[in-house]
Amino acid sequence: MCELLGMSANVPTDLCFSFAGLRQRGGGTGPHRDGWGVVFYEGVGVRAFHDPGASVSSEVAQLLERYPIKSTVAMCHIRQANVGSVALENTHPFIRELNGRYWSFAHNGQLPDYRSPQREDPRYRPVGQTDSEALFCDLLNSLLQSGALALSQSALIDVIVAHCKAFAEQGVFNVILSNGDWLFSFCSTKLAAITRRAPFRPATLRDCEIEVDFKAETSPSDVVSVVATSPLTYDEGWQIMQPGEWRVWDAGELVQQGRVDVPVFAHPKPAHKKGQTPSDALRV
Amino acid sequence: MCELLGMSANVPTDLCFSFAGLRQRGGGTGPHRDGWGVVFYEGVGVRAFHDPGASVSSEVAQLLERYPIKSTVAMCHIRQANVGSVALENTHPFIRELNGRYWSFAHNGQLPDYRSPQREDPRYRPVGQTDSEALFCDLLNSLLQSGALALSQSALIDVIVAHCKAFAEQGVFNVILSNGDWLFSFCSTKLAAITRRAPFRPATLRDCEIEVDFKAETSPSDVVSVVATSPLTYDEGWQIMQPGEWRVWDAGELVQQGRVDVPVFAHPKPAHKKGQTPSDALRV
Repeated sequence: MCELLGMSANVPTDLCFSFAGLRQRGGGTGPHRDGWGVVFYEGVGVRAFHDPGASVSSEVAQLLERYPIKSTVAMCHIRQANVGSVALENTHPFIRELNGRYWSFAHNGQLPDYRSPQREDPRYRPVGQTDSEALFCDLLNSLLQSGALALSQSALIDVIVAHCKAFAEQGVFNVILSNGDWLFSFCSTKLAAITRRAPFRPATLRDCEIEVDFKAETSPSDVVSVVATSPLTYDEGWQIMQPGEWRVWDAGELVQQGRVDVPVFAHPKPAHKKGQTPSDALRV
Repeated sequence: MCELLGMSANVPTDLCFSFAGLRQRGGGTGPHRDGWGVVFYEGVGVRAFHDPGASVSSEVAQLLERYPIKSTVAMCHIRQANVGSVALENTHPFIRELNGRYWSFAHNGQLPDYRSPQREDPRYRPVGQTDSEALFCDLLNSLLQSGALALSQSALIDVIVAHCKAFAEQGVFNVILSNGDWLFSFCSTKLAAITRRAPFRPATLRDCEIEVDFKAETSPSDVVSVVATSPLTYDEGWQIMQPGEWRVWDAGELVQQGRVDVPVFAHPKPAHKKGQTPSDALRV
């Protein structure tokens, strides 16, 4: 089980508050010690931070908690390894360039028996050993070969949903995906979302004693949506997503949503117990 | 004109000392205020830091100067924009996955009249507007289409050199390229290199008052090579590379080198004067 966080906003917005909460789950309030990563889109550009260690004790994560990188789309993942060693190449989010745009992907779950389809000369290949990166590469290869990228955004999303449904029929597949414009999420077992807009109110994190008054930090026209594995604050109205539910946000607004039938799998056991390092850990 | 830095080592080695010097050239001792980036390879994994601001005043750069990320191959670039706005997507090094490995590329110079060859459905496409990223994508597309990736390492490097020669016939093309195993450099006008091995000695940076005693920081079997636009220290024997000279390092050792004929072009003028922000700057 890993932890996911995604953000879509209509103005460049920093992730410091949400990241401060999520970061605690990486070895503090949660057992996800096996790496973390954040991707920030700024226009069509992207900057990413990846670390194979625990976010709670990471100096880079500490910087990101206080240094406001402003972005209209961002995603974050903290990892508890099940498939693939604890190593930089297995640390989400994964990024690939597709038709001149950076696509990024973060996954919570496991497809234990997943095998990539045989393709002649696949364009995208995984660098690491996770099922997650293989799924991302297979999705991109499918989108490219099927011509789906030439479709309208909503028709493209329908194709992506069909792939997600097929993946979610093989295991736990909670996912966040973006091309820098829209933010897509698919809930296989566990995701929650919230849209913040005026009138803004204060909110308090569940995972550490930090309160923010969004009213003081925003202007009345700001719209910011956040999706996460579980609610990050305890005093706001998060919507708990149902298995098979998917959503698309663009500039903070929900622009497309739906639900498909998926089986509900149990979450996979981690490859190692809390506090232990897996034997195949590759810490460099 | 930009500044390049590359490192190849036989043991995971941090870049803090060299980066401390190079960073000063990004708005301090040098005019390269238009972004900076660093790529660290750890095994087959990669972590990158990109920032469209000046490295001398960047909080992330400040962290990297003191936080030792250990790597066997690393590269760094600080930018003075000539082609392409000051924006994250135009910030080197550029990274692409090729056959399941991350390739990275940083360029100093300009090919003012460069046009990418017409290709049907090119696999790699630039996200930003720089000639540098277009050159990198074209190089990867060529390597893929020509079957050069199936060659031995030294034959593959010969193909890469031939491409570099062709690029360097069209403008200034100083470059650093890596697939995580080897570090390749091509000198069109300006590069310098040094290999440090036992007996290690102290060294002092040119760009700020920092001295390091490599003897205290290393073990006798360590071998670390560094390539940079100009020598980073003033009390070591850097080798000044000649136009057309290229080198390949693997685990710190020089494993292949040569020289081809190239014309020597004048360095391009920056898109804006020192201290000014270009009008098309996209700072987000």
